[in-house]
Amino acid sequence: MKNERSRRHFLKTCAATALAGGALAQQSWQPPPRIENKLGVALVGLGYYSTDVLAPALQQTRNCALTGIVTGTAAKERIWSEKYGIPRRNIYNYDNYDRIVDNDEIDIIYVVLPNSMHAEYTIRAARAGKHVICEKPMALSVAECESMIRACRDNGRMLSIGYRMQFEPHTREAMRFGREKVFGEVRYVTASAGFQNGSPKTHWKLQKAYGGGALMDMGVYSIQGARYVIHEEPVSVTAQSFTVDPERFDEVDETVTLQLEFPSQAMANLMTSFRASANILYASAQKGWFSMNPFSGYRGIKLDTIRGPVALSDINQQATQMDEVAWCIVNNEPMRVPGEEGLRDLKIIEATREALRSGRKVAIA
Amino acid sequence: MKNERSRRHFLKTCAATALAGGALAQQSWQPPPRIENKLGVALVGLGYYSTDVLAPALQQTRNCALTGIVTGTAAKERIWSEKYGIPRRNIYNYDNYDRIVDNDEIDIIYVVLPNSMHAEYTIRAARAGKHVICEKPMALSVAECESMIRACRDNGRMLSIGYRMQFEPHTREAMRFGREKVFGEVRYVTASAGFQNGSPKTHWKLQKAYGGGALMDMGVYSIQGARYVIHEEPVSVTAQSFTVDPERFDEVDETVTLQLEFPSQAMANLMTSFRASANILYASAQKGWFSMNPFSGYRGIKLDTIRGPVALSDINQQATQMDEVAWCIVNNEPMRVPGEEGLRDLKIIEATREALRSGRKVAIA
Repeated sequence: MKNERSRRHFLKTCAATALAGGALAQQSWQPPPRIENKLGVALVGLGYYSTDVLAPALQQTRNCALTGIVTGTAAKERIWSEKYGIPRRNIYNYDNYDRIVDNDEIDIIYVVLPNSMHAEYTIRAARAGKHVICEKPMALSVAECESMIRACRDNGRMLSIGYRMQFEPHTREAMRFGREKVFGEVRYVTASAGFQNGSPKTHWKLQKAYGGGALMDMGVYSIQGARYVIHEEPVSVTAQSFTVDPERFDEVDETVTLQLEFPSQAMANLMTSFRASANILYASAQKGWFSMNPFSGYRGIKLDTIRGPVALSDINQQATQMDEVAWCIVNNEPMRVPGEEGLRDLKIIEATREALRSGRKVAIA
Repeated sequence: MKNERSRRHFLKTCAATALAGGALAQQSWQPPPRIENKLGVALVGLGYYSTDVLAPALQQTRNCALTGIVTGTAAKERIWSEKYGIPRRNIYNYDNYDRIVDNDEIDIIYVVLPNSMHAEYTIRAARAGKHVICEKPMALSVAECESMIRACRDNGRMLSIGYRMQFEPHTREAMRFGREKVFGEVRYVTASAGFQNGSPKTHWKLQKAYGGGALMDMGVYSIQGARYVIHEEPVSVTAQSFTVDPERFDEVDETVTLQLEFPSQAMANLMTSFRASANILYASAQKGWFSMNPFSGYRGIKLDTIRGPVALSDINQQATQMDEVAWCIVNNEPMRVPGEEGLRDLKIIEATREALRSGRKVAIA
């Protein structure tokens, strides 16, 4: 009963912006409703994102608690155990990872490993009876994404991809602008997502085997941006690659530009880079424009429109995603960002790779 | 003496922003200094831009006066004559155009004809001993641009291209950001310039013979933007064409995306369109970004930066360009936007056309 009331409240909150119709909403953001008992989350892979972003976010969640870690570095066990009070029994390494099946204090496994390990650790988590949040990009290939989705389905577990932007209020409002044609039909989107990646060649993001490169790491923001603002799936792609530092970027792409065509005849001109910083999305519709700068940061997303800026709450995206995932698990509601969402981006990435290889326009299946 | 003082004042004003060095300037704009006797301007071609923009701008100029017109439409002669007090003797048509050589009340000919007529009417103006302002794009080809520059030089006349943005304070400030590396070296520019051109196929902007198409009409804004913000000349181009309405766009391009590489290894990802509205430039440098939205409008240019917005004067760009051109003519100073500037863009456009034809990266001469 309590849950049912919460659920109605939650769904109402989700729909509130939509109800505003053509007007630009300026309403306060509502967090996902509480669940009775927090779900336990184990972080797999304790690099920068787990250490500096997800673990702090888990201190702000209302529906999740950081109850476990999986790490291959013994030194990190003590540090994390002390800092977050994680009991010895909830600390795993890559050898005994599958024994997590016996641990009732861990409900959700959050895979924060290099891209090449996403598929394996997601599938093993599902087989261990755990729900999964997997970082983006979902995996190296469409085939891997499909295996991950199948493994979760076969084991009755839920899967969400770490597309935190879709939980961010300004981004959701921009998505609404596209979906409800608030400024008319979107005809053009340009989005650029990049940073000056000074990592040495030894870093996994500069290695092909690990699924490195700008397109995989940052390109998904540009691709997601075009998709959620146009609110359609692209049908074709052309792409170009630019390499200024061929010594560091001999295996993976440094800068990629790509053009997507959509069924409504909208088009997107995108860019992603490990050489240039960039963090902007601009959408042009028949009756006006809207833009976000930045559009893919952890905080401080800014939404501007032809009618003036739209200031909404600046929330913790990661905490919100985890809280909503937990709520959906407990209430058996579909994920806002399921595995299928990550799969769609991998289809686009695979077609983009083919477009880069062939120099031709490639249809997206 | 008076002129010399004015000139020093003017050059000082031009340099004032530069003197501010690394700081973001927020100073008041100064118009070009006055000359003793206004120069007479004749508009050639009385379409929308002459009627609604240039003639009103000429009412605001301090150094120019609208003293003549050249039109093929007899009905317009009376209307313009009455509205602007243009005497019968200063009204020409396309048959007696060359007789303008005998008219001392006309110093500058402003060519506002369809693109395919720019070269001929500029060259004939120079031969008639008149200085020329020619609308952008300068002409149909590099060869035409070179003829125009030669004709003006051979006749000792000055030539400026109607790139009004280069006179706009926010644009000039953005140019300074690039030139002085205020945010470090610019590594990436994306610019999109387009409008929803609903003209019928009979309009010259939709016909190849007249030099129509989005790339010629609006693409030059994106190309100029990349060039003046990066402050270099591009060395190569790749380009893609998108056509949604093949009936109207069977001769000229509807939407074009292009990628330019620069000697400093900066790159630009540009878009131009007759289908989608777009009016934004975003530049990313090593230590921050700056952007203009809109960046190519007649009024209301907005400049934003990672350090906050920069609000300068919102001026009449056309009046300012004409006033400065007149001042430069009288003082024999080089044009801010000479014919060579239009020629450079035509080189890029010709390479872009070749890139579209071949599907390959094309070097820019």
